[in-house]
Amino acid sequence: MNDKTAQDKLWGGRFAEPTDAFVEAFTASIRFDWRLYRHDIQGSIAHATMLAHVGILSAEEAQQIIAGLKAIQEDIETGRLQWSVALEDVHMNIESRLIERIGEVGKKLHTGRSRNDQVATDIRLWLRDSIDLLSAELRRLQQGLLDLAEREAHTIMPGFTHLQTAQPITFGHHMMAWFEMLERDHARLADCRKRVNIMPLGSAALAGTPYPLDRHYTAELLGFEGISDNSLDAVSDRDFAIEFCAAGALIMTHLSRFSEELILWTSAQFGFIQLPDRFCTGSSIMPQKKNPDVPELVRGKTGRVNGNLTALLTLMKAQPLAYNKDNQEDKEPLFDTVDTLAGSLRAFADMVPNIHVCADAMRLAVNQGFATATDLADYLVRKGMAFRDAHEVVGRAVKLGVDTGCDLSQMDLKELQAFSSLIEADVFDVLTPEGSVAARSIHGGTAPEQVLKRIQEARNRLKASK
Amino acid sequence: MNDKTAQDKLWGGRFAEPTDAFVEAFTASIRFDWRLYRHDIQGSIAHATMLAHVGILSAEEAQQIIAGLKAIQEDIETGRLQWSVALEDVHMNIESRLIERIGEVGKKLHTGRSRNDQVATDIRLWLRDSIDLLSAELRRLQQGLLDLAEREAHTIMPGFTHLQTAQPITFGHHMMAWFEMLERDHARLADCRKRVNIMPLGSAALAGTPYPLDRHYTAELLGFEGISDNSLDAVSDRDFAIEFCAAGALIMTHLSRFSEELILWTSAQFGFIQLPDRFCTGSSIMPQKKNPDVPELVRGKTGRVNGNLTALLTLMKAQPLAYNKDNQEDKEPLFDTVDTLAGSLRAFADMVPNIHVCADAMRLAVNQGFATATDLADYLVRKGMAFRDAHEVVGRAVKLGVDTGCDLSQMDLKELQAFSSLIEADVFDVLTPEGSVAARSIHGGTAPEQVLKRIQEARNRLKASK
Amino acid sequence: MNDKTAQDKLWGGRFAEPTDAFVEAFTASIRFDWRLYRHDIQGSIAHATMLAHVGILSAEEAQQIIAGLKAIQEDIETGRLQWSVALEDVHMNIESRLIERIGEVGKKLHTGRSRNDQVATDIRLWLRDSIDLLSAELRRLQQGLLDLAEREAHTIMPGFTHLQTAQPITFGHHMMAWFEMLERDHARLADCRKRVNIMPLGSAALAGTPYPLDRHYTAELLGFEGISDNSLDAVSDRDFAIEFCAAGALIMTHLSRFSEELILWTSAQFGFIQLPDRFCTGSSIMPQKKNPDVPELVRGKTGRVNGNLTALLTLMKAQPLAYNKDNQEDKEPLFDTVDTLAGSLRAFADMVPNIHVCADAMRLAVNQGFATATDLADYLVRKGMAFRDAHEVVGRAVKLGVDTGCDLSQMDLKELQAFSSLIEADVFDVLTPEGSVAARSIHGGTAPEQVLKRIQEARNRLKASK
Amino acid sequence: MNDKTAQDKLWGGRFAEPTDAFVEAFTASIRFDWRLYRHDIQGSIAHATMLAHVGILSAEEAQQIIAGLKAIQEDIETGRLQWSVALEDVHMNIESRLIERIGEVGKKLHTGRSRNDQVATDIRLWLRDSIDLLSAELRRLQQGLLDLAEREAHTIMPGFTHLQTAQPITFGHHMMAWFEMLERDHARLADCRKRVNIMPLGSAALAGTPYPLDRHYTAELLGFEGISDNSLDAVSDRDFAIEFCAAGALIMTHLSRFSEELILWTSAQFGFIQLPDRFCTGSSIMPQKKNPDVPELVRGKTGRVNGNLTALLTLMKAQPLAYNKDNQEDKEPLFDTVDTLAGSLRAFADMVPNIHVCADAMRLAVNQGFATATDLADYLVRKGMAFRDAHEVVGRAVKLGVDTGCDLSQMDLKELQAFSSLIEADVFDVLTPEGSVAARSIHGGTAPEQVLKRIQEARNRLKASK
Repeated sequence: MNDKTAQDKLWGGRFAEPTDAFVEAFTASIRFDWRLYRHDIQGSIAHATMLAHVGILSAEEAQQIIAGLKAIQEDIETGRLQWSVALEDVHMNIESRLIERIGEVGKKLHTGRSRNDQVATDIRLWLRDSIDLLSAELRRLQQGLLDLAEREAHTIMPGFTHLQTAQPITFGHHMMAWFEMLERDHARLADCRKRVNIMPLGSAALAGTPYPLDRHYTAELLGFEGISDNSLDAVSDRDFAIEFCAAGALIMTHLSRFSEELILWTSAQFGFIQLPDRFCTGSSIMPQKKNPDVPELVRGKTGRVNGNLTALLTLMKAQPLAYNKDNQEDKEPLFDTVDTLAGSLRAFADMVPNIHVCADAMRLAVNQGFATATDLADYLVRKGMAFRDAHEVVGRAVKLGVDTGCDLSQMDLKELQAFSSLIEADVFDVLTPEGSVAARSIHGGTAPEQVLKRIQEARNRLKASK
Repeated sequence: MNDKTAQDKLWGGRFAEPTDAFVEAFTASIRFDWRLYRHDIQGSIAHATMLAHVGILSAEEAQQIIAGLKAIQEDIETGRLQWSVALEDVHMNIESRLIERIGEVGKKLHTGRSRNDQVATDIRLWLRDSIDLLSAELRRLQQGLLDLAEREAHTIMPGFTHLQTAQPITFGHHMMAWFEMLERDHARLADCRKRVNIMPLGSAALAGTPYPLDRHYTAELLGFEGISDNSLDAVSDRDFAIEFCAAGALIMTHLSRFSEELILWTSAQFGFIQLPDRFCTGSSIMPQKKNPDVPELVRGKTGRVNGNLTALLTLMKAQPLAYNKDNQEDKEPLFDTVDTLAGSLRAFADMVPNIHVCADAMRLAVNQGFATATDLADYLVRKGMAFRDAHEVVGRAVKLGVDTGCDLSQMDLKELQAFSSLIEADVFDVLTPEGSVAARSIHGGTAPEQVLKRIQEARNRLKASK
Repeated sequence: MNDKTAQDKLWGGRFAEPTDAFVEAFTASIRFDWRLYRHDIQGSIAHATMLAHVGILSAEEAQQIIAGLKAIQEDIETGRLQWSVALEDVHMNIESRLIERIGEVGKKLHTGRSRNDQVATDIRLWLRDSIDLLSAELRRLQQGLLDLAEREAHTIMPGFTHLQTAQPITFGHHMMAWFEMLERDHARLADCRKRVNIMPLGSAALAGTPYPLDRHYTAELLGFEGISDNSLDAVSDRDFAIEFCAAGALIMTHLSRFSEELILWTSAQFGFIQLPDRFCTGSSIMPQKKNPDVPELVRGKTGRVNGNLTALLTLMKAQPLAYNKDNQEDKEPLFDTVDTLAGSLRAFADMVPNIHVCADAMRLAVNQGFATATDLADYLVRKGMAFRDAHEVVGRAVKLGVDTGCDLSQMDLKELQAFSSLIEADVFDVLTPEGSVAARSIHGGTAPEQVLKRIQEARNRLKASK
Repeated sequence: MNDKTAQDKLWGGRFAEPTDAFVEAFTASIRFDWRLYRHDIQGSIAHATMLAHVGILSAEEAQQIIAGLKAIQEDIETGRLQWSVALEDVHMNIESRLIERIGEVGKKLHTGRSRNDQVATDIRLWLRDSIDLLSAELRRLQQGLLDLAEREAHTIMPGFTHLQTAQPITFGHHMMAWFEMLERDHARLADCRKRVNIMPLGSAALAGTPYPLDRHYTAELLGFEGISDNSLDAVSDRDFAIEFCAAGALIMTHLSRFSEELILWTSAQFGFIQLPDRFCTGSSIMPQKKNPDVPELVRGKTGRVNGNLTALLTLMKAQPLAYNKDNQEDKEPLFDTVDTLAGSLRAFADMVPNIHVCADAMRLAVNQGFATATDLADYLVRKGMAFRDAHEVVGRAVKLGVDTGCDLSQMDLKELQAFSSLIEADVFDVLTPEGSVAARSIHGGTAPEQVLKRIQEARNRLKASK
């Protein structure tokens, strides 16, 4: 950061004394909003093009400005531009540099524009690109889940509710649960994108501009799907950013649940899966440790994304119209949310295809916890008992099993028949996990044939959405 | 609440001792989930109808069950049914009552269903209805804003940024800013509704069901647009509720900003509007007080809706699949969010058409704070000066005005010309608020003709969306 | 609720029309603030006593008022008083009833007081009592942990980091970790109580009162430790309530971590403990299920308490002085936080002494995951190797163990010596969990003798603090 | 950042492949935890000193280590040390550098220590210093408020409730409200500091250490007031950081309320104060603008601090013991909270003494809104009317005033007597703001003599607390 003096400020006319040095640093945003430079320049180029299009600038003036902006972009990307705190933000830094570089004509760029509509435009352009990047990472992770689910469509594991063994399911079915969550996350981003992709430019400071700008033309140049209908609203609301952060919090919530399970499953007690060494780290003191760092860290990062959402909601609460300085605080939570999502999704998309499934351990675990008790109840219903009575009968059988340390499938026919005379030799077919899983052959159910159908449909959907 | 004993529990088979009395009360949800009774019964009737349709129940059995359920609904609505804490929740209360009423056949209703998919279905049905109600209230409030905006399309007031006078705007334009925010809120609810309106029924406890249910048929009966594709996901995720609460937090954020302005505007210092006595209350000690209670309370209620969102995000963080008891905590924040939104929107929709506008006070206020300084700068630009230089010139003129306590429009031509020789007699046209406002005749700008166009377009849009 | 008409309002003088019926219901707080009735009456009795003490009321007037208030309290507690929405809140309801009951003299009670300082006093009295109740429940739970820890001071279990086996620890040591967290929670409540226990009465609406009240006398009557020093601050800030909710969020965070472990430990995969049937519930569909409802629900309830904190912080953000109607929203989050804490602590305090420890399962689990690898490294250090080198050596030994499925203690001396010639026959002493645990005999370490010392110190501390 | 390879990792023994490059960057914390370097080195020096003290290191070894650490600190502070991502965190970076620099003996530093207790110690040392810094800034701001309050102890302004004129108060009294809030904030930091200032060192990874460390000696060297009593708790809980962030959120909440008022008061409508130009900035488009950036920005920054609190609470929710990688996420929210508080307090402490009070504007505003209506009611009470009746009478007088646009003090005696025959000529004494303010001469009230007493007491308290 260099040390432009306050006199260089572009708004100094009415001020009797320069800004206090600490206040200048405290209120400047260049420390973080420099990240918008590419979109700021993109917006300025479109604005200049439009200004020439409607005759406010001459073609030559526009050319000079555009060339100057492109040169500045190159300076930035090659590290030749030093950001100045005295120039407050990315907009003033770039504009001031432009004037230095191309002289008087540079001062005409800001015609019909204010920093208020400029920054609102920049953020929307930046967020639109970020959404596209995140959507692509979501798709990559979903693809990995589809492949893994297909590979393990017949692998049997215990399904849990309340972390107690509930019923046998397949590992492929479980993976598809994650796929579905991410599918909704993807749809939420797409819905949010519609509301992001609206152009505020032309709203000027708050009331619109007297210059005869062609807003639709600028919007077209920038790929916006529409233009804002009210200038006060356009420069002051940040609901689109909050909506995005809420969608992001749901993505992280889903990843936190995914993470929780990966952590459980890699524990010595579960032993259901292994993660490759390259996704884990060790301990500085315990030589045996191999820790599932990636899921742990992602689970933890849920906190910051939830925090960013709280930050933005708190920020906007009770702000009167139109733009207030408070809104400068919109950027860091938004940037951090995008960065966190991008890193977390990338790590998961890289890791998921490399999950090693310990099918034997899972199969063994199905025998702990009377996983087929519901199947026995359903068997009794098919033999004519009301479900509520069947539930009661099986409950008593389980109680015996707990006391004797014996799974239902390990009891002999006579023992079972003591609970109901409806039980016959064919009962053992339904007491196997394979039979149980195959029986749940309903849309959305765990039967391998159903899971494979869902995978195929999903593949088609993904292909179609490209 | 009556005192069913624990033996009556529908799951007691394997248990050796009854539930601890405090634990029973602590874990029961009937205290709040009774509100779902209408949707629970609606879901059960559809389930029974489908069970008959596929032959699991006889037509007569289905008839008995449906008649029983309808009678129970009447009992509830006439206050004849006493909810039992021992029966835990609304589902068990109703089912148990059904069995009491129609005997053995009542036990068959739960075939192919679990409380896990049942409650997920109930909440979705309830939330769908709630969204429809809230959307209608949003529309009513928007309608009020359109009428008010049209009525006051030419009323001039100071526009603020940083709560400092910025530029003259019209009151109608300001109202349309609120309209636009609510328009996006409405769209968010519509997008959320798509994801709410998916049927989990058929997912059973977590793995699907072995019974040959016709899920599409049930979905059709209940007006669902689709069925869930994965049973684990369907019974355990609550992202749709969180998405709704996030959309709700944005509605409240918008209302909090609206409220903040109404409170400012009714203060003695602003005096821009008056609220009817019937929307205000007084003080127990200060006899002169007339307080803008409704906007204050709505501003305060933003807190609880943000809190509900935090509650649900915290709730779901790191929950392993599938259903856990934690999820019982999903209902109260959701109910409270809907109730708060419904009350706040209703109060605003009732109040807004009755806002009394003090046009004289607003007009007077425009003269405080050099509202047309930008117009003078723009004037200089039209005379050939670069915008940045014009800004500087006007800044110096304002400084003189601050020192002498004199608005720009109150300076004489000579004084103004001291700042730039480009200034001529026609400058006074742009220094009036009416001129300033009329000049901003760009799409989204504050010029009355533009505002009236936006109002007309909005009316057409609303009519079309019905 | 009965139907007082708006004319009965105690502040109606300047109003031209009655309050809108919906607005009346929307803005009334009696629906929830009736809970403060006992503390409201307690405060009013003290206020009346003081008014007589300083001669504003005659002794007889004070007597009449006090008798009237006591009669009203009895009416409330026997259900004979019907709360009126038209009378807005608990204060107006009680005052209005008082006037009905004792006539003109009742109107004198509000002398030198406003609802603003009255409600601030009520909440502080109520919260002070609540803190005392919660502190007692915390102590009861801590006592249960001390007993359990003492009983199981020698029970060996695997200690985890990253949910991977780390080092052997004792179950008693683990219980004492929870004890310590609750100890800090208890201290936080005590610190918060100091700031709660300050009396606002005498601040009146916002500016103090012209009546010569004796504030110290009232404070003494009510057990307040001090009186507020600034009337604007006293009627408008709610930081004490937020501080309490933050302390509450930490209690729930601690209980959520405790819950998470209880849930893990009761799973079939861990099997470390069992919870009594009376603290668990079953499934409506899966007859074998016994779910750890209490810890699951408490884990879930963390959400609402975090949400309440967010609600209150959002509520207070950017509120100008002094009292605003927004503050009416302070009560429900506070009440809910107290209720949730009281229920959760009670359930845990009841449950913890009944945890059944499966010592064999824990002991067995210690052998999974190379729990004594650090001990081997420490052994090598004692033989002269630098710690970093020892870590490296043991890492290689573990890698062999992973590949061959063999714990370090199961390798023979020769195998071990292949990794370092410093290893001798005495190595097997440190490779047992018992040796490992006993070795960590440092203040705060897991060695049984240390744990027993900490328990004894804690018992002494608790006894002393009574 | 340089490019150490993964083989350099201090825990690599059991790993078959190096860490994935992206995972390495994603999981490394050096990007932000380098900030702990000074406290990390401080802790290591104390640890080494203690190791020599108990004979684990020779005096010479300790000397070498300490000299090495000091040299590294100098390297860091002069920019000569390049942090390595491959070395993950500040601890490994410094330790690895130490070994490079002093050879084998460097490997002995980590004896009896783990990164788990090391980082917990570092954060506590860092936070203790930060609390001391913030406490000093709080005191500086409080001092500024005392001076301002004293200067303006007799300046009259309207006091508001519901942002409606309530009663006359003094500006000094208003400033003291802020003083009181910050006084409690200061006390909360002091209470939090007690719980921060406890030493975890000696807890090692989770179970304590077999080395005979002298924990009390190390604690004394580092200025800790106590040592942790349970190693599992000590390495895994972060409640002290959350408590700090909650105290920080209250500080920001108070500053947000302060800010809101400064913003209102600098508006053209209020005009109660002016802020010096050096604390304000202008607009790129509106030449007249002088915006109160500092209070706006601070109001906005409340969001991020609330968000950090949410982040940490979410982070810790349901984490099983002991240390998990999630906890790496504790640092950034904590750092950001401290930075935000430090900046905001500094800006306010600099700005407050320079607030320019526009006493005339305030005095004028007192006449808007019937500020002395309560005084009239109190007057009637002194003449024998019951308060409730007096309230009613004055309410009617105000209604007339509203209708005729006339303040109570502007009505003549006859007009007033129409409302009550108790009114006599002396009524005009109580209808002046000066009389109203002087009358509220109760502890905590707005009367100048009371405010000056409170200021003197506060000065004494602050002096005593040094």
